[in-house]
Amino acid sequence: MSMIAPLKKVTDMGFDALRDAYKTGQLTPESLMNDIRSRAVQYDSYNIWIHLLSEAEQATWLNDLKNKDLDTHPLWGIPFAIKDNIDLAGIPTTAACPEFAYTPTDTAQVVQQLIDAGAIPVGKTNLDQFATGINGTRSPYGPGHNAFDFDYVSGGSSAGSSTAVALGLVSFSLGTDTAGSGRIPAGFNNLIGVKPSIGLLSATGMLPACRSLDCMTIFAFNSDDANTALAAAEGYDMRDGYSRPNPFDNQTRHYGLRQGELTVGIIPPPQLKFYGDKNYEQAYSDTLAKLSNAGFQFKEIDFAPFNEVAQLLYEGPWVSERYIATQPLIDDNPEAIFPAVREIIAPGGKPPATALFKAQYRINDLKQICLAQLATVDCILTPTAGTHFTIADMLEEPIKRNSELGYYTNFMNLLDFAAIAVPGAMTKTGMPFGITLFGPTFSDRMLLSIANRVQRAIPLKKGALDLPATPTNNTPVGQPKVIDVMVCGAHLTGQPLNWQLTERGATLKTQTTTAASYRMYALAGGPPYRPGLILDTEQGQAIEVEIWSVPSEHFGSFVAGIPAPLGIGKVQLADGSSVSGFICEPYAIADATDISHFGGWRSYLASLS
Amino acid sequence: MSMIAPLKKVTDMGFDALRDAYKTGQLTPESLMNDIRSRAVQYDSYNIWIHLLSEAEQATWLNDLKNKDLDTHPLWGIPFAIKDNIDLAGIPTTAACPEFAYTPTDTAQVVQQLIDAGAIPVGKTNLDQFATGINGTRSPYGPGHNAFDFDYVSGGSSAGSSTAVALGLVSFSLGTDTAGSGRIPAGFNNLIGVKPSIGLLSATGMLPACRSLDCMTIFAFNSDDANTALAAAEGYDMRDGYSRPNPFDNQTRHYGLRQGELTVGIIPPPQLKFYGDKNYEQAYSDTLAKLSNAGFQFKEIDFAPFNEVAQLLYEGPWVSERYIATQPLIDDNPEAIFPAVREIIAPGGKPPATALFKAQYRINDLKQICLAQLATVDCILTPTAGTHFTIADMLEEPIKRNSELGYYTNFMNLLDFAAIAVPGAMTKTGMPFGITLFGPTFSDRMLLSIANRVQRAIPLKKGALDLPATPTNNTPVGQPKVIDVMVCGAHLTGQPLNWQLTERGATLKTQTTTAASYRMYALAGGPPYRPGLILDTEQGQAIEVEIWSVPSEHFGSFVAGIPAPLGIGKVQLADGSSVSGFICEPYAIADATDISHFGGWRSYLASLS
Repeated sequence: MSMIAPLKKVTDMGFDALRDAYKTGQLTPESLMNDIRSRAVQYDSYNIWIHLLSEAEQATWLNDLKNKDLDTHPLWGIPFAIKDNIDLAGIPTTAACPEFAYTPTDTAQVVQQLIDAGAIPVGKTNLDQFATGINGTRSPYGPGHNAFDFDYVSGGSSAGSSTAVALGLVSFSLGTDTAGSGRIPAGFNNLIGVKPSIGLLSATGMLPACRSLDCMTIFAFNSDDANTALAAAEGYDMRDGYSRPNPFDNQTRHYGLRQGELTVGIIPPPQLKFYGDKNYEQAYSDTLAKLSNAGFQFKEIDFAPFNEVAQLLYEGPWVSERYIATQPLIDDNPEAIFPAVREIIAPGGKPPATALFKAQYRINDLKQICLAQLATVDCILTPTAGTHFTIADMLEEPIKRNSELGYYTNFMNLLDFAAIAVPGAMTKTGMPFGITLFGPTFSDRMLLSIANRVQRAIPLKKGALDLPATPTNNTPVGQPKVIDVMVCGAHLTGQPLNWQLTERGATLKTQTTTAASYRMYALAGGPPYRPGLILDTEQGQAIEVEIWSVPSEHFGSFVAGIPAPLGIGKVQLADGSSVSGFICEPYAIADATDISHFGGWRSYLASLS
Repeated sequence: MSMIAPLKKVTDMGFDALRDAYKTGQLTPESLMNDIRSRAVQYDSYNIWIHLLSEAEQATWLNDLKNKDLDTHPLWGIPFAIKDNIDLAGIPTTAACPEFAYTPTDTAQVVQQLIDAGAIPVGKTNLDQFATGINGTRSPYGPGHNAFDFDYVSGGSSAGSSTAVALGLVSFSLGTDTAGSGRIPAGFNNLIGVKPSIGLLSATGMLPACRSLDCMTIFAFNSDDANTALAAAEGYDMRDGYSRPNPFDNQTRHYGLRQGELTVGIIPPPQLKFYGDKNYEQAYSDTLAKLSNAGFQFKEIDFAPFNEVAQLLYEGPWVSERYIATQPLIDDNPEAIFPAVREIIAPGGKPPATALFKAQYRINDLKQICLAQLATVDCILTPTAGTHFTIADMLEEPIKRNSELGYYTNFMNLLDFAAIAVPGAMTKTGMPFGITLFGPTFSDRMLLSIANRVQRAIPLKKGALDLPATPTNNTPVGQPKVIDVMVCGAHLTGQPLNWQLTERGATLKTQTTTAASYRMYALAGGPPYRPGLILDTEQGQAIEVEIWSVPSEHFGSFVAGIPAPLGIGKVQLADGSSVSGFICEPYAIADATDISHFGGWRSYLASLS
């Protein structure tokens, strides 16, 4: 085992640092790109680039920046790398197979969106050929070397995209992920790796590995940068059959610092696998300890159904998708394919459709069990990988050890879940150890916000650079699933309009009173008879009320159904808090009867009978 | 062609009629079941039943009814039929293949829920064997005969379940649908046929045809009864891998009479197919004319992508699912299988997984185009079938003519859409002609509500019975997708809080003024500075405002984010209408400046600068 190199000292490539440097004139995009090219030469032996772009090849984008406002372009002048299974017009896409290479005329949809937001492509990066592998050694362009220790694998298949960020050659990068390719290299290189929900990022212009499972991914130094890049990259694309509209509560603005109690599912010790790696095992314990100190609560879940799904990925018929993606090369010129990759893909024409249907049935059945477990926690946390191999060890048993690396990642895409790889505590030898947070489809922003909180609990450097990376976005988030509403009249339990709450799945949270500063009036009209509540800090008193928790997506129709003179505003409660609740327009109380002395609507009604 | 029999005169089997008869004591469940059994004998030649339950076999359920309250059991004493590919404990499930038959120990989840709601099974019904077919002739128990003309096919595969309802032997029935089996027989027998979204009804205890596409269906006389049965039948079932939670706006309460403008997509004439059937072609025109008179608007859509999906069903690898469902019989004893069914299923082991993946890719691509078209209309309307064959004609060309029957139905399940078959105008010979309304996943209740409106426009009898069937539920529905909200201050276009509208996907609907009965005050506090709007019918005036349309699911969080003293109530506009909009608590205007004379917030702001 080689000595671990000290952390590198280079230009700070974080988004905020670059934008500040641009604003103050310390840096220009041209000077940064020249700096990057000169530094890239120093890392030649890491086999990061399949095609490093020249100044001439970048000229158009750099020129376009002159007409773009930095303030309105969130990625203005931010350099990024593109995995070489994603198209950039005019530059060959090789998928790490020179015999397969083609030169696309169109730029991939996501790449174009990033460029439109001001980002500058730096080059096309090395990968496990056809994205087949999660270790990074399966390329005729040479194995990917780890940013912390040259003897270790970078992880893959997004090998070059991960080390390009970790070594500070770009600020973020695009990878892809079918079985862990966007997460494993993040874990091995001290990066955040976003594996979005399938369909959140367009796959137009991305070479498929398993088209039904693939997604484009983002490597970045921290969750802030990852969210900014993701925001520019995402969007519905009708040309991509797997594209889906992003729901409201998964949109950019819902990224921030996750607040409140957090219960995180973890794997019980007998189901954990570290393959004898005591350093990783210890780093995992250290990570949980740090998170526990920071207020995270843990709950053991059963990993068996997830693991059974994972088995189906490599043992099942999904290899047929890889076969489709590499035809006719795999049929006509199999020698052109990297040996370990060929061994995997070659049998892909054989499985029958019956095997695929049976596997899909089984996955659907298992998914119900997995979802039921997810419903009991905020997310599930696992190691990103159970161990880290040297390149030499990997090449010794390329199939078995690759499979071992995927123990915690292989099930994700088959279950259509979202996942974020996040740096954990370092090993005692100073190597990165990563954890992965995952949740159901379109939990991406929620997971990023939990990652933000993880990064506060565990000191974070920028990849292999000696620069702090802890995110600074501390906007409190934790999108409430319910909105609490104060009711004081016809919506109280047992009263005639209470069904408007219960039909929306609302539940009674508590019975309490308002602050001692309200007056209640019996309004004209009815039935149903209704009271009006008025704030009066001088002559008011406490009024009996109920607090109901309404699912937030149904609160709007509840509000819209309330006739004048009532409406929903904010009401102060006895405990000093303020909640949404019934308020009343001024005109309605002019001729109304003050019934405050009854102390509440029920007592008033009782007095009438 | 035989003479069409006159409409039958029997007990009114509609839900309301039976419940009224039970309540008044005119009928008991026992007497009704005996009546049904004696009437069933008269229709022996229709080959409806594979197993008609005896009094003894019904005894437990009838006995249980004595402990069930009619008022709280929506299906109390309502007789129903079960297609014989759905399990009823202790009674053989044959799938119309005696050699395949087994006797289940458990009752299917949906059947159990119906029984729990008070419904009484009458028997297991005949079907195209293994639900393979949509014509009804493919059964060793004999072909299904049409309820209106004995010489004509019943339609299938849910043959017996459709005619049992149409002939008044039950009040509703369960079918299944993979390619049209729950819709085609509804169209041929003057019934409503609900093909729910996949996963809305549990498939536990239902024999699969194509497990990834199947759903249980409901035949009923009208949309009211269908909705009541559906409400009792539906529900998430973790044991079914394809089960999904039903979203709020698709729940029972959202069934009613669809209000407002309706734009319905229709197929342009060159893409319509009636196979030379002038009667059906005329009935289709008559149907559209009647709907047009009733206010329906039509918009032509392109049927080509739907048709391409349909082609993939029978020509593609989904036959492999049928092969899985009938193993080992198809391998070991193929002669036990009905010839036309065997011919279809036998090659099902051959397609490779690559063919299935390619077909799934294509369907996903086509689905994006189909969804884009659906987004422009409330639903799409097609004929349910383009023609109706006699049994003799069907048997002459059993594969080709079955395929012709599916022209308007085969794509539905592959696209994961919901559909409702509804009776249209009768042909000039007095035979039923059906239309189908369809929409995206979980549009079931919206479609049922449109069906309700269709049934008001086209006089409806109960199946082949001389009894009116027009639904009576006239609860207005038409769940607004957006809620209009009046804004008058910081949320106006260009003002500092306007982003709270735009981030929710809200759009500016119009600029207008309030009714001439408001006063506007500049409130204390800020920035952002905010006005308060107060109704004053005596000294008020018109105030400039904007109306924004907010997606209803995001309106709640918008309201919850408004700080005191403002809230959302109802505001009167210049045109006399009332919309949701900003109101103000009385206390806040005590010391506030009246700025009404500026006529609006923008003019006031301009005066400050």
